[in-house]
Order: sequence, then C-alpha cells, then structure tokens
Amino acid sequence: MTFTRKPLADCVPELVATARGDRPASLVITGGKLVNVCSGEILEGMSVGIQGGRIAYVGKDVSHMIGDDTRVIEASGKYIAPGLLDGHCHIESTQLTVTEFARAVLPLGTTGGFFDAHEIANVFGLKGIKLMLDEMRGTPLAAYMQVASCVPAAGADIETTGASIGPAEVAEAYTWGADVIGLGEVMNFPGVVYGDDKMIGEIQETLRAGRVADGHFTWPSSDWRLPVYAAAGVSGDHECVTAQDVIERVRLGMYAKMRRGSAWHDVAQTITAHTEHGLDPRRMLLVTDDRSSESLRDEGHMDFVVRHAISQGVKPVTAFQMATINTAERFGVARDIGSITPGSCADIILLDGNLADVNVVLTIASGVVVAENGVMTTDLPAFTYPDEVLASVHLPQRPVAGDFIIPAPIASGSIATRVIQVLENHVETIERIHTIPVVNGKLQVHGVAGLCKIAVLERHHGTGNQSVAVVEGIGFHEPAAIAMTVAHDSHNILVIGNDDELMAQAVNAVVDVQGGVAVLTAAGTTLFPLAIAGLMSAEPFETAAAQSAAVSKALYDAGCTLNYAFMTLSLLALAVIPTLRLSDKGLVRISPEEGIQLVPLFVK
Amino acid sequence: MTFTRKPLADCVPELVATARGDRPASLVITGGKLVNVCSGEILEGMSVGIQGGRIAYVGKDVSHMIGDDTRVIEASGKYIAPGLLDGHCHIESTQLTVTEFARAVLPLGTTGGFFDAHEIANVFGLKGIKLMLDEMRGTPLAAYMQVASCVPAAGADIETTGASIGPAEVAEAYTWGADVIGLGEVMNFPGVVYGDDKMIGEIQETLRAGRVADGHFTWPSSDWRLPVYAAAGVSGDHECVTAQDVIERVRLGMYAKMRRGSAWHDVAQTITAHTEHGLDPRRMLLVTDDRSSESLRDEGHMDFVVRHAISQGVKPVTAFQMATINTAERFGVARDIGSITPGSCADIILLDGNLADVNVVLTIASGVVVAENGVMTTDLPAFTYPDEVLASVHLPQRPVAGDFIIPAPIASGSIATRVIQVLENHVETIERIHTIPVVNGKLQVHGVAGLCKIAVLERHHGTGNQSVAVVEGIGFHEPAAIAMTVAHDSHNILVIGNDDELMAQAVNAVVDVQGGVAVLTAAGTTLFPLAIAGLMSAEPFETAAAQSAAVSKALYDAGCTLNYAFMTLSLLALAVIPTLRLSDKGLVRISPEEGIQLVPLFVK
Repeated sequence: MTFTRKPLADCVPELVATARGDRPASLVITGGKLVNVCSGEILEGMSVGIQGGRIAYVGKDVSHMIGDDTRVIEASGKYIAPGLLDGHCHIESTQLTVTEFARAVLPLGTTGGFFDAHEIANVFGLKGIKLMLDEMRGTPLAAYMQVASCVPAAGADIETTGASIGPAEVAEAYTWGADVIGLGEVMNFPGVVYGDDKMIGEIQETLRAGRVADGHFTWPSSDWRLPVYAAAGVSGDHECVTAQDVIERVRLGMYAKMRRGSAWHDVAQTITAHTEHGLDPRRMLLVTDDRSSESLRDEGHMDFVVRHAISQGVKPVTAFQMATINTAERFGVARDIGSITPGSCADIILLDGNLADVNVVLTIASGVVVAENGVMTTDLPAFTYPDEVLASVHLPQRPVAGDFIIPAPIASGSIATRVIQVLENHVETIERIHTIPVVNGKLQVHGVAGLCKIAVLERHHGTGNQSVAVVEGIGFHEPAAIAMTVAHDSHNILVIGNDDELMAQAVNAVVDVQGGVAVLTAAGTTLFPLAIAGLMSAEPFETAAAQSAAVSKALYDAGCTLNYAFMTLSLLALAVIPTLRLSDKGLVRISPEEGIQLVPLFVK
Repeated sequence: MTFTRKPLADCVPELVATARGDRPASLVITGGKLVNVCSGEILEGMSVGIQGGRIAYVGKDVSHMIGDDTRVIEASGKYIAPGLLDGHCHIESTQLTVTEFARAVLPLGTTGGFFDAHEIANVFGLKGIKLMLDEMRGTPLAAYMQVASCVPAAGADIETTGASIGPAEVAEAYTWGADVIGLGEVMNFPGVVYGDDKMIGEIQETLRAGRVADGHFTWPSSDWRLPVYAAAGVSGDHECVTAQDVIERVRLGMYAKMRRGSAWHDVAQTITAHTEHGLDPRRMLLVTDDRSSESLRDEGHMDFVVRHAISQGVKPVTAFQMATINTAERFGVARDIGSITPGSCADIILLDGNLADVNVVLTIASGVVVAENGVMTTDLPAFTYPDEVLASVHLPQRPVAGDFIIPAPIASGSIATRVIQVLENHVETIERIHTIPVVNGKLQVHGVAGLCKIAVLERHHGTGNQSVAVVEGIGFHEPAAIAMTVAHDSHNILVIGNDDELMAQAVNAVVDVQGGVAVLTAAGTTLFPLAIAGLMSAEPFETAAAQSAAVSKALYDAGCTLNYAFMTLSLLALAVIPTLRLSDKGLVRISPEEGIQLVPLFVK
C-alpha cells in the first residue's frame, strides 16, 4: 500500500461531488462524539464522510454519501478526534527508521509530525535529510521535515562532522517540496543575537521561502536577549522548562513548545502557564523532542503526552488543541491537518473510555484505517537506504588497547587533569580538576576510583583524528566499556570505559556492524546495531526496542545506574552545551562568557 | 513620503542589530500598557523599539536602543495596541479612493485590511483590481487585495458588465505579489455546491497558489449544503447574521466574520456565539464589509466595531484579538501584522481612557506616526488613475424623456405588470403584480400612487442596451429622480423616478460628470460625482462625506426616507439576490428553486 497525499486543490471536485451525494464516500464514520478543536467543543452524534485521503463532509447525517463500496465505521460511544501531531521531534532519537517510527506511533494515534533530521544531517548532510524525507513521503504520516540549522553545532575548528549545512543548503532543501516546512531548532542562539552571518543567512533564506524558523534558547527567559532572538524571525521554541519560559515566548509572538521526552519531563511545569497563570493556550504546543524506542513501547508517544497534560489539569479539548490545531497553525498547515473539517486530510482517531484517558482504539491516516486496538492493520512500503548510508563508519585502522593510553608530559608522579563530570538528569556537565598518578609517562586513570577514560574517534572521513580524556560519574563497578556511533551532534565514535582492552573491543564491535552501541563487560557483549548512518536500526520497532532495553540493562548491571544512561552519555560530545565536552579534536570548554574553545587536558 | 513594506527577511540584520543595541532605533514607545493579543494579557510598563518599518524589540527597557536621532514617544497611562485590521471590506462602498480611505481610517486606528475590489472589477476587470492594488501599495496601510470571484455575478446572458473574471484571471492576479492574498467572497455558492466549472476552477487556482478563499453563503447555516461548500476549500465567510451562523462555520473549520457595516448590524447577534454560547473565539473576526463615507465620519471604522463588540460583553483583549491577530492568522500573515512582537510590522496604536473606550489617540503605520488626536500628521502620496478610468460612462447618445416611455402591448385599458417592491432594511425585494393603466399604448406608471419607473442603461460598452420597469416603495412625494453609476454588481446606470424628464436629466447629470449620483427635484440638482470608474470620488474624504450626506438629505426631502436609501437603491440591479431585479437586459427573477432568469414585464 502506498500513501500519497494529494494537494487539496486537486481533490476539490471529487470532495464536492462526494459531499453533495453524487459520488459514494470511500469511508464514513457515523454517530460519534466529535472533538472539535476549531470551536473547542465536544459534539454528540456526529458523522464524517471521507473520499480518498480527505474529509468530504462533517455533519449529523452522511447517509446520502454511503454507496455499496463505502466502508462504514460505527463510532457510537466513541470519540472522533483529529490525529495527534508532534510539533518537534527527532526521529533518530528513537533509533528507528521513519517507517518503523510510523509503525510504532500510528497505533498510538500520532498521524503527523514536524521532524528535524538533525542527527543524520551531521553524518550525511543534505543527502541524509533528503533520504529521510523520501522515506517519510512513503508512510501514512503527515510528515514534515525541518532543515537542520546547526551542522556542525560548534564549528569545523572544534569538531569534525560528516557534512555541513549553511544558507545555500537551507535554500536548496526548500526547493524539494512544501513538506520541507522550515528551519530546525537554531541552537546557535548566541550567533543569532550577535549577528553571525551563517545563522542570520539561514533564517533569511527560510523567511524568503515562506517558511518558519524554530528556536532553541537556553539562557533564562528573563534575559534581555530573548526579544533580540525573536526579532530575527525565530517563531517557535521548545526549550521551555518553566511557566515563565512559556509565557515570555508567547508574549513575544513565539509558539511555545512544551516537551515531554523520555528524559525531559517539562510539561508538568510548563503547562502551568495556562492552568495557573491563565495564558491564552492558542500558541502552546505539546511535543516530544526525543523519545527512545523503549519509552514509545512502555509509555507511548503523543497520546502519553496529551494524557499527561490533562492529568495536570488542562481541559481535555484544550490539550487536544495543543497537539492538533495549534501545532498545524504554528507551521501554517491547518488547511491540511489538525482538525476534522471538510477538505482536511482524513487523519482521524477513535478513542474509547473518557476523553481524558486518551485511549486510542483506531487510527485513520490519509483516509486509510492503519491501526486498530494498538496493532497496525496495514503494511507500510519498505524503504531501502543506499549502501553508502549503511557503511558510515570509516576508521583508518582497527583500534587497539594502546590507542587509549594517555601520554603525560612527566615520566612519573601525578598531574592536575581536567575531568568531565556527568550529572544525572542534566544535560550540562561540570569541569573538575583531579590530580592523577603518572607511571612510565602514562596517565593511570583506571587506578583512580570513579574515573573512566572517554575517547572520541572521528568516523566520517577516516582522518584518524582521535582524542582521549577522563570522565567521572559513570558508575562502573566492574571492568566495562560502552562504545557508540550516536554521539551528539557530530556523531563520531564515543567510547567510555575503565579498561583499555574492553574499550578497543567495544569500538571494534560497533565498527564491525558499521554503527551501533556496544556494551562490553565480563558478562559478554551487548550489541544494538544501528546500521543506518550509525544512528538508526534496520530492524523492526519491536526488535530495536528490545535491543535498546538490553543496552540499558547491561549498563545498569555494570553499575551505570544513571537515568536514561545511554541518552545522557551520548551527549558527552555535544560541544555546544556547558561545561566540558570531548570532540575528536580534544576537550572543549563552553561558557556563556568565553564561548566555545579547545582546552588542554592537563592544567599548567 | 512613501511607504514601502520590506519583507521581514530583508530586515533581519538591522532588526537584530537594533535589538541588541548596536544601532539606534528609529522610534521607541516607552512605558505603556501593552495589549498583548498573543498571550491575551494587558502588560504594564512595556516599551517597544522600532527600526524602520518593523518592531525590533518589546520589553521593559529599551534604553539601550535610544540614540540621538531616535524619536521617543512616552506612553505612560496609555494602552499600546496593534493597529486594527478589517478582515473583509469593499473600499468602493465608501465611495473613496484607497488613499482617501486610508486618510479616513488611519486616525481611527485601522492600519490594515483585506479588501475585495469587487466593484471596480465589474467595470474594469483585472485592470481595475490592479490599479487599486497599486494605489494600496503607496499608502501606509498593510493592505491586502482579494481577487473578485464573481464577475459577472449573474452571467453574461443576464447582465452586461464591463469585464469578466474566471480561473485564468484569478491565477494571473496571484502572480502580482504576495499581497494578492486570496479569492474574494464566492457569492455563487450554489455554483460551488453543484460543481460549476468556473467557480471550482477559481477556488482550485487559489489553493494552488497557496491562497485562501472567502465565502458568502446565505442559505441557512443549518442547511446540509454548508459542509459541501466548506469541502470546496472555502475557509472564511462574513454572511453570518445569527450566533448559529457563526458556530456552524467555525465548527466546519471556517473563520466566521462578524459584520458591522453602515446598514448591516450583525455583531450584536453574532457575537453571542462567544459571549453566550462559549465558542472558542480564535476563529471569530470583526469586519465592516460596507461602510459609507458618512458612517466613517460619524461613527468610525474598526474602532467603532471593536467598541461595539466590547459593549456586547466581550472581554476587551478578546475583542482586540478579533480585529488583529485572528484576522492576520486567517489570512496567514500573522508573522507580519496583527500583534506587537519583535519582527512584526510597526503598526501600532495608542489609546487613552479605558481600553473599552477604544479611544485611539495616535497611529503608527509601518513605523511612521501618521495620525495624532484624530488628525493625519503626514501626507500620503497622490495616486493618479488613468484617463480611461476617469471616462467610464459610455452611452451611444444622450437620453431623453422619451427613452423612459414603457410601450404596452395594448392601446388602452390596463395591464398586469410585474413590479419590484423595495423592502426597507432588507437586501431582498418582493415581486408584486400591479394592474396599471395604458393610454395611447403607453404604460401610465406615474399616474399610480407609490409607483416609480426604474431603468438600467448599459454604460460600459455603449451598446445602447436599456430596460425600463416599475418599482414600488421609494416614497417620493414630489417629482424626483435619482440616477447613479453605482448599481451593484454590474454598475450600469440605474435611474429611478416619477417623472420621465427628471429621469433623463438625472442620467445626463451623471453622464456629464462621467459617473456619480444625481438627485433631481424641484429644489434643484444634488450631485455626488464619482469620477473614478463611476464608483469612487476623486475628492478628499471630507468633501465626499459631505456630498454623500447631501444625497441622503435630498432623497429624504423628496420623501425617500428609507434607511441608508442610497445603499438600498444601488442594490436594485443586483441580479443574484431574490426576488425581482432589473438589469440592462430586463427584469430578472431569482429564486432558490428556479435559479436566475429573465422574465417579461407584463404578465400574460
């Protein structure tokens, strides 16, 4: 089955003919409780008539549209709601392909989203974004692509990425189609505020193309520079963690995106902008940002986020607005998605129980029943990534234990060394100075309790660039190492361990499968292969979720009990968030005052 | 002074530099009460920084942006609100040019609007629309043009217009620029519902161009065909006269426009959709549709409509939303207008007293202070219409009294005759059958109390087409005639009188000035010249309003006491609204069952 969304203009004659009864509907839903997100009402006894991929009629009576071949779904006692939309999501964070992501979320009621293929862009640039866009176009999802704005995140002098994106690439991407909807989160907000040509240029190309630019502002919302950022034309932002963050953004004309990822639990705080402070909710959205395949399986997707918002005291129809019409309006596509209205795409869910339960029992996407009772009822077309994308790990030779020796500038004694300290449940790290013994000119990291080595090996171009440093707070209580090709944002190979030999084996394990996550301990090797760009699994959702869970368990068993440990560790290379990170070029220190700079391992 | 609105993309560098304090603002407003239509709040102590035509900063403190050349407006004690937007307006109905309309409404706080140049389109087609667009572009208004969809309204077999517009013309108009914002009210809603190729084609071209289509549906909102109309892609409609009309449209995904024209007093009823029925107001707009120059002078424009809505119990900030951000969102231009947010156009009003007073004391449009205390403070550029448009009245010869003789098929006696009965305060007419005496083969209309003759003379192509019929309910109690080149929608010459000689003189009076309104009585001639296309005055607003008032008074003095008589009479040729009308081709009868057809004057 293929899923093609025709523009409304091309459907008008058949929709009108169907609505007036001259042509039988392909599908009708009769007699349910309509969640009307336009009017903010729940309407009893409503029916919907569908022709192909779009809604032809909404009213009390659709009997004039029912022909011999019309499928009739009786919705008595059920709610009929628009399919849920995710207003900010990185599919790669699920480690699933777009197709498997669609299989995972469609039964949960998500029928569309706005995806920032930021991760694959760091590996394969525009080509990677285009591949994921092509895959999106074959799924039943109303999927829109945002062009990654910050590739590389920290600049070529700080880290090596597989590709780079600037204003020209952004402009090119918009020529691919109207589903390339806008600029992805502009993480380099200081660059915008202080007039960086590349960042300003990307925003200008976005506005010229009639698209919108999404933001990522992590200074406090009370900072006088938030309005400066807004003046650049950035009109949405998901980096809200307090009610005030939401309020200040909405006041400045932005859409405030409230996030409930696997590890980012922001909605309980941010939703109070409406529930306690009375903010007009029309510019408040619910989003996931990053959710692992395990959390999709165990908690859910947008259904979980909407249910959670309601549990915080939002009126159910308002919470649905925050995941449907508000989202569609933010991106200028409310004519196509986000409501059950004549002319709109037939992206519809039926819900059982109370509306607050958000219990999705049937999903219609683009006019096709794709899932019932939590199970997909239709196959999705297979999408094949080219060989090049399946072979994204390029090292000049196989690493050996000796590669992780850290030479010291002294033959023996001890030396003051910068150490990255991991903070559980926090994105930021702390810079520590430890005095570490040196023997025969080699730093004896593994002799100090609580310390591990951390290394980044450039994997895109086979340059052989690599750096080794020291990290604290991992928690391994036995010999262990984890290697991964998911290492935000440049996605080189990141390896952490307390045993040089295991570190080498872990890296080779992910090299051998051309990308993935490997945990090596005395108990053996736990492998989560991520064949596609080293970021996404080629396996079905269920397999990937099980493998992801196995990685979590192996880490836990080895003593790494950090909440969502893999997610936290994969950010240790993210060279744009304070304080100390490691790239393939060395230690990177980030501060609001001094910006981003490479710093030496040893303190003079 | 010229007023050019640059796209946001081109302004980003200077806005960001201004906002961060590296470049002085051109204008700042300090310390007012901000009407924040995004968040639905009134915020105290707020300041706004402006660079050129756009807002660079909104916050508590703009001191870092003030330079030697920065104009500073102290707003202490005043409200700072976005300029008001008219979501549906025919400028020609004011009988003013766009420039004079701008002069009239800017001091009242209207800074933008969505204009359907439907009337000039019937005279000059696309050329007429383009001229008014060109004039719009020179004013300080954020003015957007809608392409007239129904030219001619009733078809070339029923009436003669100066031009016609179909799908190809609609598509062409969209190439003129982004300010050609959508399709004007689709009055031929039966055509849409029943699949008329021209109407469907115009809507398809509109959607293909990424524009929106406005509606005009006058069957009851409970009619099962309203959803059919919506399925065609029509997404806004101002023909709401009850709360239910508003509710049903919003439920179907339309924006419901609530009208307070000179003669259409719908808001008091329609607003109860929100105030009594609790409808989410985000898709409810306030509009004027048609307001005469007198009512602009005596009541106001959008300030009057907003004030009126508040007086019906709408929260003031909600009423402002209905005339600002809701309107901008409906047309997809909320990034540019409709709120006071960084990056938006600097279209700002200051208000004194209580917000509910809507007492506008200063208007800023595109960053320029254009009016203070009700008076324009800047000149607007002159716009010159080409000679062709100033000579739009083409008759093959000067009419004489004999032209208004109605020959009867009998030599003497009396004969059953169809008569158009005018209804005060109603758009529709009634078909009456009167038995009228015949002498020497001529119908003796003027001998019957309460009857007048009515004639339409084709004036676009000099064809000499003309028709004469009988009308009842005008009220003249002395010899009188009124002739006008404003005769919806084909705008031929319409003349009504109880004296053939006065009728001929009235027509010649408007021919002599190439368009206008002339009332001839024993007291003399009252003339309101409308030189531009026979629709709009070339005079300043104040002069036109006085001349319009003089016409009203002359009619009243002659016994025609109909409310807004000129507006009502000018609709007697509108061949799409029931029941009996007169075109240059003869009597036209309109009914929901039989459609539109020419009927004979005499009943067999």
